[in-house]
Amino acid sequence: MNNSANDAKVSIKPSTFLNPVPVVMATCGDMEKSNIITLAWAGTINSEPPMLSISIRKERFSHDIIQNSGIFGVNLVAKSLIKACDYCGVKSGRDIDKFKEFNLTKFAGETTGVPLIKESPASLECKVRQIIELGTHDLFIADIVNVHVSEELFDEKGAIDMRKADLVAYNHGEYYALGEFLGFYGYSVANKDALARRMRKN
Amino acid sequence: MNNSANDAKVSIKPSTFLNPVPVVMATCGDMEKSNIITLAWAGTINSEPPMLSISIRKERFSHDIIQNSGIFGVNLVAKSLIKACDYCGVKSGRDIDKFKEFNLTKFAGETTGVPLIKESPASLECKVRQIIELGTHDLFIADIVNVHVSEELFDEKGAIDMRKADLVAYNHGEYYALGEFLGFYGYSVANKDALARRMRKN
Repeated sequence: MNNSANDAKVSIKPSTFLNPVPVVMATCGDMEKSNIITLAWAGTINSEPPMLSISIRKERFSHDIIQNSGIFGVNLVAKSLIKACDYCGVKSGRDIDKFKEFNLTKFAGETTGVPLIKESPASLECKVRQIIELGTHDLFIADIVNVHVSEELFDEKGAIDMRKADLVAYNHGEYYALGEFLGFYGYSVANKDALARRMRKN
Repeated sequence: MNNSANDAKVSIKPSTFLNPVPVVMATCGDMEKSNIITLAWAGTINSEPPMLSISIRKERFSHDIIQNSGIFGVNLVAKSLIKACDYCGVKSGRDIDKFKEFNLTKFAGETTGVPLIKESPASLECKVRQIIELGTHDLFIADIVNVHVSEELFDEKGAIDMRKADLVAYNHGEYYALGEFLGFYGYSVANKDALARRMRKN
């Protein structure tokens, strides 16, 4: 599209039209009885202390598990996990063991003990601070208390290169890989040195 | 990366590691005095009624404007807007008129009167329901009360094709266009007809 100011706008029914959004595989339970639920209603909400929120329908199997335990994992989704990710969003853990179904490997977060997905490029351990009822969904406001990153994401200087994670975004009901690099935060006002150092080639 | 279960994990300092996240240009004020603030701490939080949240640092110019008016706009970011988007995240509206700086066109949301960005592929009018202090940021929980979509996003059948919006995601401090299509919600359990109809070619 040309994004010109001449484009007519059409007012549609109020809807969840924020796009793209994350898509994550949230984990819960313990190492014996674990579940995975795929969520797109998730976001970072605070920088310091680091916090995020997830929203879950009351009737979902994971809802009460997380409400009762007060802990959950957020596992980022790489392209290679997309089929498992989709499946964990449509099937209930009441009926199946989703770890087994997709041969996913559990490991226990060392801070909370919550099960995490080893095949995920990065897993966040989260502790629930507050739950707010909104309507169809409950909002779980949580502290991020530990972050586990795949060794493969680190570059030769020891910095994390998230491009290596091949992450997926959710866009109006569809999954997309991240594509063209467009710039870094602050690039529009950066000096030549910073631009030379931090602008990537596609 | 290969996403194998053998990848060693490195535990790093707790941080805002959820990726990718949205990046939006939030608008506030009125048609006379407007501001734009770019936010990545934003997310959908409820389906019905449709709700989203944004988080803003207390010291940001837009924070008090939105707190006092109780309304804001969320304008999705297309590739063509990325420079303006980045700039509106680093510069303060106390010093400059960001609409003027980038020749952006204002239009008033018909439900709230909040100024919106016409060059954005879609703009959401939001009404604040609750503000929660978290630490560095305040969380604004809001109802989505109107959605304005560019006519160009509609396909010949009248359905919205978000691919035409060329949206941008934020990934660990960098902006990326959406790339390869990977599937639609439910594709992992869909029948042949649905797959034939809804799987896109890249």
